[in-house]
Amino acid sequence: MMLKTTSEIDIVKANSSKINEVDFENLTFGNVFTDHMLVCDFKEGKWEKPVIKPYEPFLIDPSAKVFHYGQAIFEGMKAYKDENDDVWLFRPDENLDRFNKSAVRMAMPEIPEEIFIGGLKTIVDMERSWVRKGLGNTLYIRPFMIAVGSGVIAQPSSQYRFMIILSPARSYYSGEVKVIIAEHYSRAANGGIGAAKAAGNYSAQFYPQKLAQEKGFQQIIWTDDATHTKLEEAGTMNVFFRFNDTIYTAPTSERILDGVTRKSLIAIAKRDGIKVEERSVLVSELIAGAKDGSLKEIFGAGTAAVVSPIVGFQYQEDYYELPKIENSLAIQLKDKLTKVQYKLAEDTFGWTVKV
Amino acid sequence: MMLKTTSEIDIVKANSSKINEVDFENLTFGNVFTDHMLVCDFKEGKWEKPVIKPYEPFLIDPSAKVFHYGQAIFEGMKAYKDENDDVWLFRPDENLDRFNKSAVRMAMPEIPEEIFIGGLKTIVDMERSWVRKGLGNTLYIRPFMIAVGSGVIAQPSSQYRFMIILSPARSYYSGEVKVIIAEHYSRAANGGIGAAKAAGNYSAQFYPQKLAQEKGFQQIIWTDDATHTKLEEAGTMNVFFRFNDTIYTAPTSERILDGVTRKSLIAIAKRDGIKVEERSVLVSELIAGAKDGSLKEIFGAGTAAVVSPIVGFQYQEDYYELPKIENSLAIQLKDKLTKVQYKLAEDTFGWTVKV
Ligand SMILES: Cc1ncc(COP(=O)(O)O)c(C=O)c1O
Ligand SMILES: Cc1ncc(COP(=O)(O)O)c(C=O)c1O
Repeated sequence: MMLKTTSEIDIVKANSSKINEVDFENLTFGNVFTDHMLVCDFKEGKWEKPVIKPYEPFLIDPSAKVFHYGQAIFEGMKAYKDENDDVWLFRPDENLDRFNKSAVRMAMPEIPEEIFIGGLKTIVDMERSWVRKGLGNTLYIRPFMIAVGSGVIAQPSSQYRFMIILSPARSYYSGEVKVIIAEHYSRAANGGIGAAKAAGNYSAQFYPQKLAQEKGFQQIIWTDDATHTKLEEAGTMNVFFRFNDTIYTAPTSERILDGVTRKSLIAIAKRDGIKVEERSVLVSELIAGAKDGSLKEIFGAGTAAVVSPIVGFQYQEDYYELPKIENSLAIQLKDKLTKVQYKLAEDTFGWTVKV
Repeated sequence: MMLKTTSEIDIVKANSSKINEVDFENLTFGNVFTDHMLVCDFKEGKWEKPVIKPYEPFLIDPSAKVFHYGQAIFEGMKAYKDENDDVWLFRPDENLDRFNKSAVRMAMPEIPEEIFIGGLKTIVDMERSWVRKGLGNTLYIRPFMIAVGSGVIAQPSSQYRFMIILSPARSYYSGEVKVIIAEHYSRAANGGIGAAKAAGNYSAQFYPQKLAQEKGFQQIIWTDDATHTKLEEAGTMNVFFRFNDTIYTAPTSERILDGVTRKSLIAIAKRDGIKVEERSVLVSELIAGAKDGSLKEIFGAGTAAVVSPIVGFQYQEDYYELPKIENSLAIQLKDKLTKVQYKLAEDTFGWTVKV
């Protein structure tokens, strides 16, 4: 894949590295950051030269629009190290594309390909010792953009800051994942910002998530806000449902994030003859399938968790446990995807990009 | 009204005041801030002692949750100076109450009454020279809370910062306000965060607002996301519709902000024998009313704009101009409300609170 990049980046190196203080065996997700961060400011209608410099707090005005109006978007991606110590990105063009779609929806400036891709490659290259070898070890990459312009009028900012920060990570969820189907709260609406990776979409879910967790569920499966009859996605994952030998996932829409993991699993399934359909699954179908045994698996799919098998779901008063099955398609698909990411299987799609 | 307050506030005074640099005749909304700000941090489960100190940028970690997940809420209120140089707040208990409702919905800690009210009174008192006499002159007050805890896991922060900043202001909108009725985009959904003054609700509107402005409309009147048939509110104002001699406004709900101006106008109308009903107005009723002449007025109501008469509205392909009328209820209500705020009329409801 030919992606534009840039060498026009100022670099200020950290005096020393924190890497020896980090316990790579016991990482909690997203807590530890590497030595450097990338910063690129947008002022007077244009992007300035990006700078990579030591990771540290920065100064911002109390009236910055990000604080008052939530003008903020982000991406989530990972770098992987193969057996030869080469470091790889996975479909960074997809993240760039989605980032810029989010930017448009949030009335923010789009980031040029050369800054996004060039910035990624340069900073990940500098931090390559933070990318550990071995399946499940990754460097989580968080590009984001915030409105830093000051003033409390409810209008788009004229100044923005794009940043990339990096955090060594292992898989996001561990343990059994039980979910609850949303009946009252909703994540997104038609005409809303659900398809954007906008900051406000996530804090909006914290309270319903807390309620779900108090009842013993790790995740919510969101339903359409208008009728709560269609299954949509989870808070940070798209969701697949396997009935007999076919897997289904909701089509992307204004309400659903167009996940890179989702589309990659669909492509792998199609390539390998696993039946997959993009169509809305109704809550009623899920219940019927759980009752008659045709519902075999439910799993989440997202960069952080990769593939997250779900053991059961609650709907209204009842909890439905999923069967323990052999030849889980969730596990097969996770395995196939992971092998591409770590360069252990042929990358038939040309998804991996060397750093 | 008896409100709890506190004198437990540390004060660090600015060395000099910027007030002489400010052109009070030509203020644009929310651009200029006074000399001080209030800061109160929430850590390890409790609120620390508030500090009032010089207004200035502050340091924050790039991974702060407010940047990534939009955990941020705010309030908007005003201080008014009367003819005796006394300074007044208007229904600050309502803003406190709404702030804490927003906090709960966004999984943030509630702020104690004594910090909110005590903080407000103390900082407004310090900045009383920034509150100018004369109708239309106000000090706009922006209390807000942001998640400052670091880490990019999509979970509520454990650290927050509550702040109050102040900006001298005149009325928000000027000139003729033409509006467009939303047909595709939506502001809020059932089960969502529309009733909270959460940052993310506002940036979500920037893009549709930009499209509306490009077509020559200053504001959007939002409709329910599910059917786009019910009129809800504007981006920063509740909306009233007058048919013949009755004014109607949508009932508050999960989708609609419970505006202080809205409820104050309703109370004044009821007290003074103006017919007012809280019920959804349908787009079809609006069109019919515009055609048969029963639709007399539309006006927005909110702290920033107070009352904002609307001259006409666009729906689909057609623009409907409202009649120029005498004895506008919008103007009457604005006048009655403003007089209470500036202590020019008796405060029969006990709404004003002396600083
Ligand atoms: C709401 C939501 N759905 C789905 C996903 C999965 O997307 P991806 O596979 O690109 O990580 C994410 C991102 O992590 C998300 O935030
Ligand atoms: C969405 C929205 N609706 C209505 C209002 C009006 O509320 P209030 O009268 O309390 O200012 C506001 C706040 O300004 C608002 O943000």
